[in-house]
Amino acid sequence: MGLKLEEVIAGIEPLSEEWQLKARNHLNNLAIPQGSLGELLSLAEQLAAIKKTLKPSVRSKTVVTIAGDHGVVEEGVSAFPQEVTPQMVANFVAGGAAINVLGEVAGARVLVVDMGVAADLSDLVKKGKILSYKVGNGTRNMAHGPAMTREQAEKVLEAGIDIVGKLVGEGVELLATGDMGIGNTTASSAILAVFSGRPVYEVTGRGTGISDGALKNKAFVIQKALDVNQPDANDAVDVLAKVGGFEIGGIAGLILGAAYHKVPVLVDGFISSAGALLAKNLAPNSLDYMIAAHQSLEYGHRLMLEELGLKPLLNLNLRLGEGTGAALAMSIVESAAQVMGKMLTFEDAGVTRNAEVDE
Amino acid sequence: MGLKLEEVIAGIEPLSEEWQLKARNHLNNLAIPQGSLGELLSLAEQLAAIKKTLKPSVRSKTVVTIAGDHGVVEEGVSAFPQEVTPQMVANFVAGGAAINVLGEVAGARVLVVDMGVAADLSDLVKKGKILSYKVGNGTRNMAHGPAMTREQAEKVLEAGIDIVGKLVGEGVELLATGDMGIGNTTASSAILAVFSGRPVYEVTGRGTGISDGALKNKAFVIQKALDVNQPDANDAVDVLAKVGGFEIGGIAGLILGAAYHKVPVLVDGFISSAGALLAKNLAPNSLDYMIAAHQSLEYGHRLMLEELGLKPLLNLNLRLGEGTGAALAMSIVESAAQVMGKMLTFEDAGVTRNAEVDE
Repeated sequence: MGLKLEEVIAGIEPLSEEWQLKARNHLNNLAIPQGSLGELLSLAEQLAAIKKTLKPSVRSKTVVTIAGDHGVVEEGVSAFPQEVTPQMVANFVAGGAAINVLGEVAGARVLVVDMGVAADLSDLVKKGKILSYKVGNGTRNMAHGPAMTREQAEKVLEAGIDIVGKLVGEGVELLATGDMGIGNTTASSAILAVFSGRPVYEVTGRGTGISDGALKNKAFVIQKALDVNQPDANDAVDVLAKVGGFEIGGIAGLILGAAYHKVPVLVDGFISSAGALLAKNLAPNSLDYMIAAHQSLEYGHRLMLEELGLKPLLNLNLRLGEGTGAALAMSIVESAAQVMGKMLTFEDAGVTRNAEVDE
Repeated sequence: MGLKLEEVIAGIEPLSEEWQLKARNHLNNLAIPQGSLGELLSLAEQLAAIKKTLKPSVRSKTVVTIAGDHGVVEEGVSAFPQEVTPQMVANFVAGGAAINVLGEVAGARVLVVDMGVAADLSDLVKKGKILSYKVGNGTRNMAHGPAMTREQAEKVLEAGIDIVGKLVGEGVELLATGDMGIGNTTASSAILAVFSGRPVYEVTGRGTGISDGALKNKAFVIQKALDVNQPDANDAVDVLAKVGGFEIGGIAGLILGAAYHKVPVLVDGFISSAGALLAKNLAPNSLDYMIAAHQSLEYGHRLMLEELGLKPLLNLNLRLGEGTGAALAMSIVESAAQVMGKMLTFEDAGVTRNAEVDE
């Protein structure tokens, strides 16, 4: 593995104010009523400031979908059995899942990574179908103790960073996060509870679709995990180790790596946002490189986005994960980049400005 | 010109219930938690029912951006002078406008049509850069009498229908509406006031960005136009003639033509939705073929969408028109079509179903 976590955290710079200003000046001269392209303009400004150019390119796109399993499924927190995680990885490889289809529409590569599926996927790794940074066969049951060791937590963070390093070497210009892991809304809710200080019932939702009874049990299990482990909100690695998941840590690492390498990163839904919360707590500057793709229907995601201070691009009642919301939002990011790079100004287009600017 | 308005209105069929059911059954078997692709699923169902196939294609896409001028600009209702309409048409032709850039990202052709710009655009028509269905050099000032004759209103509606006929002949599979016309939020607000019965101040907004004083004047002018003309809410052609615009009628015609030919049509923002209101009032079944692309920041667009009973895909605080919001939403429609046509079911993917379905 390459870069160490501390190096990356120390190396993440805030956005260039100089380029933000240059971008804003350019956007204010486009031949449109001031501000009339709404969120596309702030996104365009962010892209320009990240890439330090008025012609930011996000043409080369990759969705990194990280899979991992969760020991806490023993407690009956999910509507689906654990075997679905490797089955879905096989579906990703076969090209029949939502993320394949939406990734194709977005013109993005989908890279599937095993960081801890509770099944032997070495065959798919050998065939080059998926990448492996496996650190275990699923986490341990966090209702009885830490989900993983501190070393494992650092390992998955650095794995995410390493993946970005490789992709940047291949020329990637826009990243998106994705997840697969039965039980991972349980871990994500626990992470949100720790960082937000909110009561567990407020941050716990139905995940893939559990009943009322199972929902109460899920909240009970999360509370138990918090009580047993006492994660330290001031130490994000501790939070990840005690109540996180391998794929969630991998996503946090991806985001840190993207920020370090100055690549914009679309954060998908609830699970990815839990990764983003970890990244934010490890390196607050990493927020400048994140783009919230969508607001999930999963109860608690709104709170997660509030905690991050990010405004989602889409709100389509998705709650699937895999990176699907992020893939869907890619064309909006592409559009913002092209607005920045290709539109004509009032002067160049020969269009008369309005007399009064009222904003 | 080809089809007559009455023929088209009579020929618009409601969605096929048989295909809606077939689509829903297929979507319920996809290897995802039930319903977890949110709005993409209802959109996929709509596309399948419009096209009567489980593999609907929306690959061939066209945004039709219709331009026209408004006599009511004499009353000082807009922040921009009328000369901006032909200047922006020239910008569309040069490829430097937002709709060019967003259309390109969407993989869509942008077809620019003059239905009544108050300038001579015959040069661009001769060069094949724009299409002309010109019925006048801008509408008359609706504050003093009808904006156009009833014959002109029927002519622009049939022009819109005619454009769709040609595009369908060329294989178009997804349409989007767009507008350009200084003063056209004034006409659109008047149309909304007529059909919704709401007071003028509730439906009037800042358009391209007018001041507080100009906003009060704009509402006053709209009220005057309604008082002078007394448009009949039960006769949409009368509403269009008295307080509408050439491009707004053209958009209504486009939507009717799309519904007649069974092509899904993305409705852009405030102006396009005024066209959609006219289409709905002429042929209620046409609603089944409409997709609301986005909710504009223009005050009143929310009310317009409520009146249509449509839920917008995007909410990005756009307020530019041109078809920009519709172009942005095209990749979501494409994604929905591919979800329908390409994803694997639980059975085909070999993924275990959940035990309990709780919906």
